[in-house]
Amino acid sequence: MTVSARGDVAHIGHVELLTPTPGASLEFFREILGMEVEAEEAGSSYLRGFGDYERYCLKLTEAAEPALGHVALRASSPEALERRVAALEQSGRGEGWTQGDVGHGPAYRFTDPDGRPFEIYYETERYRPPAALVPPMLNQHQKRTGRGIGVRRLEHANFLSPDVRACRSFHEELLGYRCLEIIELEDGSEYGAWLTATIQGHELIYLHEWLPTRGRLHHLAFWVDTREEVLRAADLFQDAGVFIEAGPAKHTPIHSFYLYVREPGGNRIEVTSGGYLVFDPDPEGTTVWPVETYKASRAWGRGFPPSFDTYATPPFDDPTRQEDT
Amino acid sequence: MTVSARGDVAHIGHVELLTPTPGASLEFFREILGMEVEAEEAGSSYLRGFGDYERYCLKLTEAAEPALGHVALRASSPEALERRVAALEQSGRGEGWTQGDVGHGPAYRFTDPDGRPFEIYYETERYRPPAALVPPMLNQHQKRTGRGIGVRRLEHANFLSPDVRACRSFHEELLGYRCLEIIELEDGSEYGAWLTATIQGHELIYLHEWLPTRGRLHHLAFWVDTREEVLRAADLFQDAGVFIEAGPAKHTPIHSFYLYVREPGGNRIEVTSGGYLVFDPDPEGTTVWPVETYKASRAWGRGFPPSFDTYATPPFDDPTRQEDT
Amino acid sequence: MTVSARGDVAHIGHVELLTPTPGASLEFFREILGMEVEAEEAGSSYLRGFGDYERYCLKLTEAAEPALGHVALRASSPEALERRVAALEQSGRGEGWTQGDVGHGPAYRFTDPDGRPFEIYYETERYRPPAALVPPMLNQHQKRTGRGIGVRRLEHANFLSPDVRACRSFHEELLGYRCLEIIELEDGSEYGAWLTATIQGHELIYLHEWLPTRGRLHHLAFWVDTREEVLRAADLFQDAGVFIEAGPAKHTPIHSFYLYVREPGGNRIEVTSGGYLVFDPDPEGTTVWPVETYKASRAWGRGFPPSFDTYATPPFDDPTRQEDT
Amino acid sequence: MTVSARGDVAHIGHVELLTPTPGASLEFFREILGMEVEAEEAGSSYLRGFGDYERYCLKLTEAAEPALGHVALRASSPEALERRVAALEQSGRGEGWTQGDVGHGPAYRFTDPDGRPFEIYYETERYRPPAALVPPMLNQHQKRTGRGIGVRRLEHANFLSPDVRACRSFHEELLGYRCLEIIELEDGSEYGAWLTATIQGHELIYLHEWLPTRGRLHHLAFWVDTREEVLRAADLFQDAGVFIEAGPAKHTPIHSFYLYVREPGGNRIEVTSGGYLVFDPDPEGTTVWPVETYKASRAWGRGFPPSFDTYATPPFDDPTRQEDT
Repeated sequence: MTVSARGDVAHIGHVELLTPTPGASLEFFREILGMEVEAEEAGSSYLRGFGDYERYCLKLTEAAEPALGHVALRASSPEALERRVAALEQSGRGEGWTQGDVGHGPAYRFTDPDGRPFEIYYETERYRPPAALVPPMLNQHQKRTGRGIGVRRLEHANFLSPDVRACRSFHEELLGYRCLEIIELEDGSEYGAWLTATIQGHELIYLHEWLPTRGRLHHLAFWVDTREEVLRAADLFQDAGVFIEAGPAKHTPIHSFYLYVREPGGNRIEVTSGGYLVFDPDPEGTTVWPVETYKASRAWGRGFPPSFDTYATPPFDDPTRQEDT
Repeated sequence: MTVSARGDVAHIGHVELLTPTPGASLEFFREILGMEVEAEEAGSSYLRGFGDYERYCLKLTEAAEPALGHVALRASSPEALERRVAALEQSGRGEGWTQGDVGHGPAYRFTDPDGRPFEIYYETERYRPPAALVPPMLNQHQKRTGRGIGVRRLEHANFLSPDVRACRSFHEELLGYRCLEIIELEDGSEYGAWLTATIQGHELIYLHEWLPTRGRLHHLAFWVDTREEVLRAADLFQDAGVFIEAGPAKHTPIHSFYLYVREPGGNRIEVTSGGYLVFDPDPEGTTVWPVETYKASRAWGRGFPPSFDTYATPPFDDPTRQEDT
Repeated sequence: MTVSARGDVAHIGHVELLTPTPGASLEFFREILGMEVEAEEAGSSYLRGFGDYERYCLKLTEAAEPALGHVALRASSPEALERRVAALEQSGRGEGWTQGDVGHGPAYRFTDPDGRPFEIYYETERYRPPAALVPPMLNQHQKRTGRGIGVRRLEHANFLSPDVRACRSFHEELLGYRCLEIIELEDGSEYGAWLTATIQGHELIYLHEWLPTRGRLHHLAFWVDTREEVLRAADLFQDAGVFIEAGPAKHTPIHSFYLYVREPGGNRIEVTSGGYLVFDPDPEGTTVWPVETYKASRAWGRGFPPSFDTYATPPFDDPTRQEDT
Repeated sequence: MTVSARGDVAHIGHVELLTPTPGASLEFFREILGMEVEAEEAGSSYLRGFGDYERYCLKLTEAAEPALGHVALRASSPEALERRVAALEQSGRGEGWTQGDVGHGPAYRFTDPDGRPFEIYYETERYRPPAALVPPMLNQHQKRTGRGIGVRRLEHANFLSPDVRACRSFHEELLGYRCLEIIELEDGSEYGAWLTATIQGHELIYLHEWLPTRGRLHHLAFWVDTREEVLRAADLFQDAGVFIEAGPAKHTPIHSFYLYVREPGGNRIEVTSGGYLVFDPDPEGTTVWPVETYKASRAWGRGFPPSFDTYATPPFDDPTRQEDT
C-alpha cells in the first residue's frame, strides 16, 4: 500500500497549538517569531510565516493546558484525498469529515496510533496579502516585515510516542509518508523516526515517550533561511528574555541546525534551518541507526539538557522529572 | 499525460561536459570547486560533490570545443523508467538504449526539441567511499575534504533554446517535470522556464536563444549550503584568478543566490545556494511573469553583463557578439 | 605633528544629517534600519544603534535640502581635546566652542578644507536604557529589538572633495587620523582616501568630487555584524520599496561588504559589514593604489552605476548628470 | 604609568607552541586550519594565516610535552620598545635581549608574574609571498588557498593563572594593555580578565588556575571572518576526526563565537569570529562582572564540559581530573 500512497500527501499544512496564555503566546509568535495574524475568531488566532502560500500554518487556541490541538495535512489532489480517506476509513482510525476551518475546505479527521488528532484536506484558500504586505515580486507571497526573527513557514511537528514504529508505519502505509532516518534500540524497538512527504528532511517526527503517557507534543519547528538567522534568533530570544533550552547546534539526524525555546504557554518551539535533501527515491535513501552507532557518532554541539527527554506538552506530573539547571 | 508522468523522474543524475582543456578543467573542478575524482577512463573523468549518493554528478570529457555532452536523469523506479521510455518512443524523440556508463545501468537516449542529448536510467551504483573519505556519521555519503569551495552536488543545467515553450512542454509531458516559473514575452513566446522534478527550485532551465543556433549550454550550477559559502567562493575564485562574470547576487526567479564563472574549457559554471521550495501541488504554485512585470520587479543586485545573453557553449561565431568590459 | 596627534581622537561620535522629509526619514531610520529614538527636540531627532555606548550616533534635522549637518569626533581624553583644539586654532580652521548638544559636553567647531562642519568633544553621556531596553548582559548597552535591519552603530561618513589630498592631510596632521588606503590618479592627485582613528577600516572617507562644487556628502554607513545580515537588509529594503542603488558586493578598499540605498530625504545610506583590521602600526600598513592598478584588480561584484560618481547631497544641478537605469 | 604605556604595544605578534607530535601538529595547522608554512628550521616550523602582514603568527616547536613556548608582542615604534624595555627592567621581570628569531629583529625577553615567557620586539619582516601565493589585490598579503578552514590570523592566547589580578595589572602597567572585561569572585579575587592592545576584544586572556600549578596555556585562538565559517570549521573538524571539546556557541565576555578542539600535540585550539569592538576610551568601557551576575546572565549556548576548567598544557597530573564524556 505504501507505493500507492506515496505522493498523496503534498505537505504538512498547519498545526493547532493549545495555550493557557493566549495573549502572551500570540505576542511571542507575532512579535518575536515575526509571524502575521491572518485571521482571528473566538478563542483562536491564525498565524502565517512570510513564505506560506496558504493563509496560515499555525492556529493558536486558548485551552487549560499547553498541548497539540491537531495536525492538518494537505492532499496533493482531490483524488489523492479520496484515496487516503478510503484507506483511513478501512484502517479504523478514521473519524469522519468536518466542514473545514478558516482557510480550507472539508477535512477528514483521523488519529495516529497514539490517538493524536490529525486532519487531511485538499481545498485551500491561497493567501491574498493586504495592501501593506503586497510584495514587490510575483513569486513572493508576502512582504517581509523585518519584525523579529521572521520565520518563513512551519517546518515540522515532533511527537513523543510509546510506540514509534507503529506511528511511523501508520504514516508510511496510510498517508504515503517516507521515513528518512530511524534510530533503533537494542530490543529492536525504535527510538526515533523522521518522516517526510517530500525530499526535505522532515515534516513529522516521532521520538520515544519515556513516561507512562501518550499523545504529547515535543515541539513545533519553524524555518528560517540560513544558519546565521538561527544565530540571530538566539540573540533576539536572549534579549527578549525567552528561555533557551538547547542550541544553536547541529542535529545528527537530517543535519539541520536547531534552537529550542518555550513559548509562554509552555509549548516547546524550534527555529531551524539547513539539513540535507534526499533525492534518492529508493530505500537506500533511508538511514537506519543502531542506537550504539548513533551514540558513537553524534554531530557537533553539546547536545541536550535532561529536560529535553522528559518535558513535553501536555505537561506530565512526574515527581522524578528533571529540569535543566 | 502530465499527471501520469509526474513523479517518474526522481532527479537530475549527472551531466557530461565537454572541454578542450581536460587537464585544466579537471584541476578547476577538483581543486577549486573541491570535487572528488571518483573514476577515470580514456578521455573522461567522473567527479562528485560531497553530498552525492550516486558515484558522480559530472562527467568531464575531452573534446574540440566546450559544450554539453549529455544530461542523465534518474527514474524513480523500474516501472517509471518503462513508462517514460514508452512515451519517448511514441514521441519520436527516442534514440534507443545504451548499455550504461560508469556507475549506472542501461540508459535510454533521447533528445529534447533542440536535439540536445539526454538519457534516462534507473539502475545506479551507490557511492562507497575509499578509507580516506569514510564519514563519521551514517547519514553522510562522504567526508568533507575542506579543499576549495566544497560543492555538495549538481544543482541544475541551464540551456538556451529558440523555442523555450516546446522544450518546457516536452519535459512536462514526456518526463513529468513541473514548471515553477515562466517569463512570457509580449508575443506570447517564452523567454525562460524553470523546471523541477521535486519541490526545489530547478533542475532544468531553458532561456531564449537570441542567436541563430540551437543546442547550446548556458551553464551548469553546483550547490553549496549557504549564501555565505557563495561569498567565500567569490573570494576563492578571485584569488585563484578565475574570471567572475556575474554575482554574487539574488536571482529573481526561484530567489536563489548566484555566482557565475567560466571553467578553463570555456563552459559557464554557477555556484548557487538558497531559493525557495514549492510545496503547493497545484498550478497556482507556478509563477508566470509577463516580461514587463519581470523587468519592473527584479530582485536586488546589479544584474548581468551583455555576455550573459550571448555567451554559451559551444561558442557561436557572431560578429556582433558583445563581451562584458 | 602627525605622531603627537595619533591617538587623540577616539572615534567618530555622531553625524548630523539634514533632510527635507523629517517624518519619512525618521521612519526609515527607526522602522527599517531599526534604530531607537533616544531624544527629540524641535526640528531634530537623535537616533542610536543597539551597540552605541553613547546616547546616539545620528542626529536627524529638518532642512530645505538633504545634506550633512556636521560630523562630531570624540577625543580620547580632556588633554587630547586640548591638544587638538590648540592645533586647530593654530591652523586657522577653528571656529570656536559650542556649549554642546544633547548627550555631550562642550564641542570645538572647525571645518575641513572644503568648509565641511566638524566638531570635537570629550565629555559625553553614556546611554542608560529605559526599562524596556535593559539588556540581559552587563556587557551590552541595549537589548536588540528585532525591528528591521538592526544596525549596531554608525560606521563611517564618506565625503566628496575637489582636493582629497588636502582633506586627508588635514585629518592626519591636525586630528591624528591614519590613512589606510589611497588611490592616486596619474597626475599625482588623489581619487580617494580611507581614514581611521583605530585599527578598523574606516571612519572618514574622501572621494574625488567631479562636479564644480564642494562640501557634499556621498553617504553615511551603518554597521551590521555579518555579511549575511547585509543580504537580509537587501531583502528587507526591497520588500519595503527602498531604492537599492548598488550592492550587496565587496569593496576593493578595506574589503568591506556594502549595500547602498537612499533614505527618503535623498541622502545615500550604506549598510556594511566585514573588511579587514590593520594591526601594522607602520606606514607599510597603508595601501597606495596607482589608479591603473586599482582598475585592473577590483574586488568581485558588478560595481557601481553612473549615479554613484555624481549623486551626492546637497544635490547639484548638473544637466549632464546620469542616473542609473 | 598605565597612561604612558597605552599604545606602546601594537598587537600580539606570534606565539610559540610546543608539541610532542610535531609532524601531526604541523599537518593539523597546515591541512585543517589551512595555514601556510613560511619557514622551517631544526625542530621548528613557522606558520601564517592568510591575513598576516608579518611572516608568521605561529611557531611550532618539538618538545617532550605540549605547552606554550613563548608569546611575542610587537611594539608600535622603536621609542615604544625602548620605553617598555626600560619599564620591564625596572620591574625586575626583564630577562634581557635575544638577537631575534626568524622574521623579526632583537627581542627583549621577560616573564609575566606566573613566569610565563614573553618577548617584545619592533623590527619585523613583512611577508613577501612566493609566486603561487601572490594575491590579486594590493591590499591583500596573500592569496587564499581554499585549503581547510582558512584562518586569517592569530586572535588571542588564553592562560591559566593562580593570580589573575597580578597578571592583568602587569600587562596594564608595564605594557599598556587595556582590560575590557573582568569577572570578580566573592572574595574580590579575579576569575578572568580580557586584555587588548587595540579596540578589538582580546589578545591576552587570564583565567583562574584551579590546580596547584602555574604557567599553563589554556588555548590559542585563530580568527575566521564569519560565524558561518566557524560552523563550517565544526563540520570540517568532525569529518577530519578532530575532537570537538566545546562550541560552536557564543562567549559571554566579548560576545565572540567560539569552537574548541585539541591539536594532535594536546594543546587546545579555538577557532573564533565575531565579538564587539570597544570605541569608548574611558574606564566605563570596561565591564566588571560580579561572579553571581555573570552566572545569572550567560550568553546562549550550552557552555563547557568539566574538562574546560581543568585541562590545559602542560598537562597536570591530577587524580581528580574530570574529562568530558
